[in-house]
Amino acid sequence: MTTGFVSLVGAGPGDPELLTLRALRRLREADLVLNDALVDAALLELAPTAQRFFVGKRAGRHSIEQPEIHRLMIRAARRGQRVVRLKCGDPFVFGRGGEEALALEAAGIPYEVVPGVSSAVAAPALAGIPVTHRGTASGFAVIAGHAESAYGPILDGLAPGAMTVVVLMGLRERGAIAARMQARGWPASTPAAIVYGASHAGSFTWTGELRDLGAASFTTELPAVLVIGEVVALADQIAPAPADHAAVTPAAPRLSSLERSS
Amino acid sequence: MTTGFVSLVGAGPGDPELLTLRALRRLREADLVLNDALVDAALLELAPTAQRFFVGKRAGRHSIEQPEIHRLMIRAARRGQRVVRLKCGDPFVFGRGGEEALALEAAGIPYEVVPGVSSAVAAPALAGIPVTHRGTASGFAVIAGHAESAYGPILDGLAPGAMTVVVLMGLRERGAIAARMQARGWPASTPAAIVYGASHAGSFTWTGELRDLGAASFTTELPAVLVIGEVVALADQIAPAPADHAAVTPAAPRLSSLERSS
Repeated sequence: MTTGFVSLVGAGPGDPELLTLRALRRLREADLVLNDALVDAALLELAPTAQRFFVGKRAGRHSIEQPEIHRLMIRAARRGQRVVRLKCGDPFVFGRGGEEALALEAAGIPYEVVPGVSSAVAAPALAGIPVTHRGTASGFAVIAGHAESAYGPILDGLAPGAMTVVVLMGLRERGAIAARMQARGWPASTPAAIVYGASHAGSFTWTGELRDLGAASFTTELPAVLVIGEVVALADQIAPAPADHAAVTPAAPRLSSLERSS
Repeated sequence: MTTGFVSLVGAGPGDPELLTLRALRRLREADLVLNDALVDAALLELAPTAQRFFVGKRAGRHSIEQPEIHRLMIRAARRGQRVVRLKCGDPFVFGRGGEEALALEAAGIPYEVVPGVSSAVAAPALAGIPVTHRGTASGFAVIAGHAESAYGPILDGLAPGAMTVVVLMGLRERGAIAARMQARGWPASTPAAIVYGASHAGSFTWTGELRDLGAASFTTELPAVLVIGEVVALADQIAPAPADHAAVTPAAPRLSSLERSS
């Protein structure tokens, strides 16, 4: 009897080209893909033979509870299936991957972790913001901004200016986050950015000062990453080319040619 | 006349399967690859037609100064070459990628940033340590541990237990780092780990308490990542399968089959 297997896979920030080779391989081999919201449709097409199941949450609307995700993974693996649990970014950065690993351990299901490119680093980078920079920032903090109970104690415990601060899931709370940081002593003039949809089509970046972070407002469905710290000022000087600089890489094979190979 | 192009590429933690698809594509197309120490030989084989140039530093021995790296990139691009600057992990996490981007901007050379899987997240993950975990850690800090002038002010400015702390390049200073954290108020019993060679052959992990971090000692050339915080205790319960779980994925194509495709 064969045993199934679960891969907890990081999908990266969105662009299928920022998948890892192992993630692509697991998608191709998958019998079942359980994917979050925000996972791009183009990524799911890389798993042509798999059954696909959307288990994400959208803006507070809980489609499926976490224990049900565990049950789906375990049941499929017990049937001998190869399951890919596909998560945005990295599975262990606010992805509840730890909880899923513990559930699989408890059920005796073999599993692996396939790290992914985290938006916490990639979104600033693609917007021309290095989260670390010699003489400017020797470290960075990554925090979840969806609930004050999560980000509050962390921000209160962080000396102003000590590190670059990257906030995931913080768009709604950005005003409260900026206020809390200023109350903690961060200068109102600290450079701040909102990177929308990094690596997705239509991505754009707002830059300004911490005092204006709450007022910055755009109507978009794109995911957003907040970045606060002196490194944000580098975005004025660092403007990487977009990924589709076809003029200088005319020989670039399309992803589809990788796809056809196996 | 064609213009060259520079790609600042994150190579991930070491295993070629943790390269992104875009990184693989850029390596295949490259005319020149400038690589750091720690970049695996297997990765360089993915750039079969490129001239390769080692520009890394090893244990304090400066082989090439940073301005010389800038000159090499710029000169090659001006000749019309496609240059890959290949860096361990992510190019903007302690990779001096920001400085290189600024030098390319100043020289008017088009360039891009290809984010990679950072060891800061991947090394703990592969050792069964989620850097965030519901109810245990709502954030993590990534710091450079090679010099007290860099990590000292950050650790002094960070409230004990507020976040998981991940230290890159901190093996030599681990005793001083642990002492500084305890002086700041971190309990001596805080769980701590040293993850050696994550994603490389022969990887292993030491886990213990913060008080013992300095004494922990292994003779190895493998890169090491320090992790400090309550999430480290999860490593006792989370034991992902190694990547070569061939028994359960017999149909897995080898990387070479991806390679032959284009």
